[in-house]
Amino acid sequence: MNKYMNFRKRTAVCGELRPENAGQIIVLNGWVDSTRDHGGVIFTNLRDRYGITQIVISPETQPELAARARELKAEYVIWAEGTVRMRENPNPKIPTGLVEISASDFGVINTAELLPFEISDEQLAGEELRLRYRYLDLRRPALQNNFIIRSKAYQIIHNYFAENGFLEFETPVLTKSTPEGARDYLVPSRVHKGSFYALPQSPQIYKQLLMVSGFDRYMQIVKCFRDEDLRADRQPEFTQIDVEMSFVEQNDIISLAEGLMVKLWREILEIEISAPFRRMSYREAMSRYGSDKPDLRFDLELHNITDIVCHSEFSVFALAAAEENGAVMAMNAKNCASFSRKTLDELTEHARKYGAKGLAWMKFTDGTAQSPIAKFLKDEEISAIKAKLGAEDGDLLLFGAGNWGKCCSFMGAVRLETARKSGIYENIRSKFSFHWVTEFPLLEYSEDESRYAACHHPFTSPMSEDIALLSENPATARAITHDLVVNGYETAGGSIRIHDNAVQQTMFDLLGMSREEAEKKFGFLLSALRYGAPPHGGIAFGLDRLCMLLCGSENIRDVIVFPKTTSALSLMDGCPSDVSAEQLKELGIMLAMPK
Amino acid sequence: MNKYMNFRKRTAVCGELRPENAGQIIVLNGWVDSTRDHGGVIFTNLRDRYGITQIVISPETQPELAARARELKAEYVIWAEGTVRMRENPNPKIPTGLVEISASDFGVINTAELLPFEISDEQLAGEELRLRYRYLDLRRPALQNNFIIRSKAYQIIHNYFAENGFLEFETPVLTKSTPEGARDYLVPSRVHKGSFYALPQSPQIYKQLLMVSGFDRYMQIVKCFRDEDLRADRQPEFTQIDVEMSFVEQNDIISLAEGLMVKLWREILEIEISAPFRRMSYREAMSRYGSDKPDLRFDLELHNITDIVCHSEFSVFALAAAEENGAVMAMNAKNCASFSRKTLDELTEHARKYGAKGLAWMKFTDGTAQSPIAKFLKDEEISAIKAKLGAEDGDLLLFGAGNWGKCCSFMGAVRLETARKSGIYENIRSKFSFHWVTEFPLLEYSEDESRYAACHHPFTSPMSEDIALLSENPATARAITHDLVVNGYETAGGSIRIHDNAVQQTMFDLLGMSREEAEKKFGFLLSALRYGAPPHGGIAFGLDRLCMLLCGSENIRDVIVFPKTTSALSLMDGCPSDVSAEQLKELGIMLAMPK
Repeated sequence: MNKYMNFRKRTAVCGELRPENAGQIIVLNGWVDSTRDHGGVIFTNLRDRYGITQIVISPETQPELAARARELKAEYVIWAEGTVRMRENPNPKIPTGLVEISASDFGVINTAELLPFEISDEQLAGEELRLRYRYLDLRRPALQNNFIIRSKAYQIIHNYFAENGFLEFETPVLTKSTPEGARDYLVPSRVHKGSFYALPQSPQIYKQLLMVSGFDRYMQIVKCFRDEDLRADRQPEFTQIDVEMSFVEQNDIISLAEGLMVKLWREILEIEISAPFRRMSYREAMSRYGSDKPDLRFDLELHNITDIVCHSEFSVFALAAAEENGAVMAMNAKNCASFSRKTLDELTEHARKYGAKGLAWMKFTDGTAQSPIAKFLKDEEISAIKAKLGAEDGDLLLFGAGNWGKCCSFMGAVRLETARKSGIYENIRSKFSFHWVTEFPLLEYSEDESRYAACHHPFTSPMSEDIALLSENPATARAITHDLVVNGYETAGGSIRIHDNAVQQTMFDLLGMSREEAEKKFGFLLSALRYGAPPHGGIAFGLDRLCMLLCGSENIRDVIVFPKTTSALSLMDGCPSDVSAEQLKELGIMLAMPK
Repeated sequence: MNKYMNFRKRTAVCGELRPENAGQIIVLNGWVDSTRDHGGVIFTNLRDRYGITQIVISPETQPELAARARELKAEYVIWAEGTVRMRENPNPKIPTGLVEISASDFGVINTAELLPFEISDEQLAGEELRLRYRYLDLRRPALQNNFIIRSKAYQIIHNYFAENGFLEFETPVLTKSTPEGARDYLVPSRVHKGSFYALPQSPQIYKQLLMVSGFDRYMQIVKCFRDEDLRADRQPEFTQIDVEMSFVEQNDIISLAEGLMVKLWREILEIEISAPFRRMSYREAMSRYGSDKPDLRFDLELHNITDIVCHSEFSVFALAAAEENGAVMAMNAKNCASFSRKTLDELTEHARKYGAKGLAWMKFTDGTAQSPIAKFLKDEEISAIKAKLGAEDGDLLLFGAGNWGKCCSFMGAVRLETARKSGIYENIRSKFSFHWVTEFPLLEYSEDESRYAACHHPFTSPMSEDIALLSENPATARAITHDLVVNGYETAGGSIRIHDNAVQQTMFDLLGMSREEAEKKFGFLLSALRYGAPPHGGIAFGLDRLCMLLCGSENIRDVIVFPKTTSALSLMDGCPSDVSAEQLKELGIMLAMPK
């Protein structure tokens, strides 16, 4: 302990020294990245957030120093004083590679035990071990870079919205539980025993109330919470860029969002993306790409061939065509006629996972169609199909049949899997595709609950031309929504909101909520809509997703500094964990199954 | 519903029109702030976040429009089109007061029922009613202005830290429960039944781990949570500007913080505050002002007169002086000899509330000392006291006696109350005083628990010259801490942290934590300190408090957009609230007292 707090403070950082600094005497602080003894001369790479600088100690001129330097181990924290000089063997790979420090003195600030794994992007230890020692894994250059990018993104976002006249707010984290869709995380109240707060799934209602208050333009970078069984790319807490505007129409929100994307890509990746982005309706996205968030970096479009095959002798096609809302959809996988039988079987299996009963295929080689179903199809049907899909020798056609929506969905899954198998993904890694999907259905019917649920959320405005449908045929009403899709990921979603008390009440009615229940859950919102609510709308961006795209990462845990596992555990600190009986007693709760 | 979404979008906002816009045809959107009929001519003040503009409709030229305008009520949302023209009777009080809009058309976008209270800073309804309709109260100019200031503060803060090379991070909200001091808010885990997350009281450990990771400079504007019985100026969730730096000493943190204060006061209030700020040790603050967060906008200093009265015949003084750590403290309330007997009784009562057994006083008028205790004091004692306190005719001296620390504390309370009663506060309303209090004790002995507790937190570094005291006399060891006090409020607090595993372990030992318990609670931190932890330290600012100072408000709810009451209720949405039996079952918890 006697050396405690006794260190020479740095006068430079490890990433800044260049040939023009030669001759200067400086002090560096940092971590021993590596050290090697080269014929007695000690070369130590000293690392900090800003870079790496080589420090040299020669035993001829500095015997005592060299002896101490030989004791240095990886990840020791040291200070080193010395003179900047040109390197005899420059390292052109790093910005500081032309210079080195000829050390005159150094000291150990803190030692390091042997690490549980090496700090290296090349040789990754198992993720579980790395998560347990997250603070060490974060020393890896790749992760350091990700969080430098994320930090830059925050700054760009804050500045962009400030420049556009937005005010930043902090909405509450201890909020009211009004579960609609996902499960809430609950927080028992000690003061009001038996009552609970909920962590917000989104600040949706609060931002709408801020519009009712007249704040006009709201933004917040905010944590949201969903207690769901996690998929690989989800976290129990995630971050939204949350935005709301008054007196606007959808175009205003869309162009604001496009401006942000252009700025982020320009300032972080130095890539110019061109706005406005392409827009398509939900119906178009589903029918052409089989997805409400299609990846448009490649084509592989779906085609509706129901008309061509409605009288086919292939009964699967004919029956689907005859069904209400039935369809036969086909896709041309260019140059994929070489797919093996095994690959085709895997594609069929994939389609089945997404609800298909089967998947038909047809290969074109030497001007002829090969297919197990060819025998059921007339020549003119095959010709018509070939013409519609622009099929040529070497192409593979894939066919699905059934209810239009379901068929589009599984063919969308087949589309992505085909792209994966055909190597398309290899060629589009560094590409970005931005587009909007709009006009989602307002409602979807939940078979489980025998009632409508909101497709987006219950505060989403129907399109004004579809308002009449709310009483006539609610399922067909479209909402004023806008989802931003980047490379097949839903990166932002938003809508124009309901600002009219009567429309909001109608919406709650359609969702099967009794007047009493609506009042209990959302009375304060209904009341706010009676006191002069302006037209308003907004959008929320998934910041974690955006950072993944900007960092070129496919693991969400690479852009969240202290992430949880898919079972919502923090391996580093071991939470969630036991709490004391005293704590539970104070909260007035008990465990249903005492430990 | 047929007018739904049918409005003319604004081409200008209500705060921007000036004489140079005269002749332009514009559209405004906003709220009817007021409307009056002046001999048939309708004058409507239209309001939005940006200002107020007068709209005029004359029945002679626009009979239909005037008839409709007569139906307008307060807080209706409307659009209005018209020509900007100069006003015949300008209103110099508002920036748009030289012009008005001669309306050519208008429409109602949304109606408003009669409000539960008037939107006015002058006539405030009861706070409970205003909190229930928070979204309406937020329309008040004073609150609109507070949140514009708060938003500006966020922006200044983000930019300041970015300019200084800080990276912004988001630490987790679902964390581990390690209660030390305040109570945690708990979140039951559904996936791991019987286990709990805690909402963070501060991201302290996470930011230290980020230093171990080498991120060098961390900042975050972050929500923190404490489940305490609330005082008037506390909220269950509050916001910190959280900062941590590596390879620094205390001066680096202090000057960084001073730079932020200078920038906030300059850019928001256009006030130049001068840095560096005065610094004083904890001991000096206690002995001179009876507080670890003294308000230095006025003097009213305490003086230790133990030496003068240690042999006094007034036994209260003599006994206190003879006690170990005993003291007699006095203060000169200049020009307060006119305080009535009632006022003096109130001061005595106030002192008792803060632990005094009594309060002695002495008035000087016409060269003589009047005091109930004068008869016990020798003339030379009175002269010495008079000289030491610089007392003159018209002054009032106040005396306390007892244990030094306790005596300083209650005399500090008497100091503030005297300032209140003497009218000092009236003269310092617009003043700002910034200073640092440093060198807090590392530990304080908790009589309740018969053990030491950390004064700041258990990760605070002792002063290096006091390290040896940890084994010899821990109670006297000082910590490397820095509290920023503004106008008597603790506005920021921080320290240099322990970066040495052995010192940290010693600290846990001193706190009476078994090795096993320390490992279970903080094992991941102890482990991190073994793998190359850099020296580091930081600070956390209370952003809500800072905003109160910047907004000139004395109510914390005036700077929190959706605040809770002192019993942690949200009156607007009624949380905390009941949740369904199903929700509790899924979480594996039961109410100890079923409702």
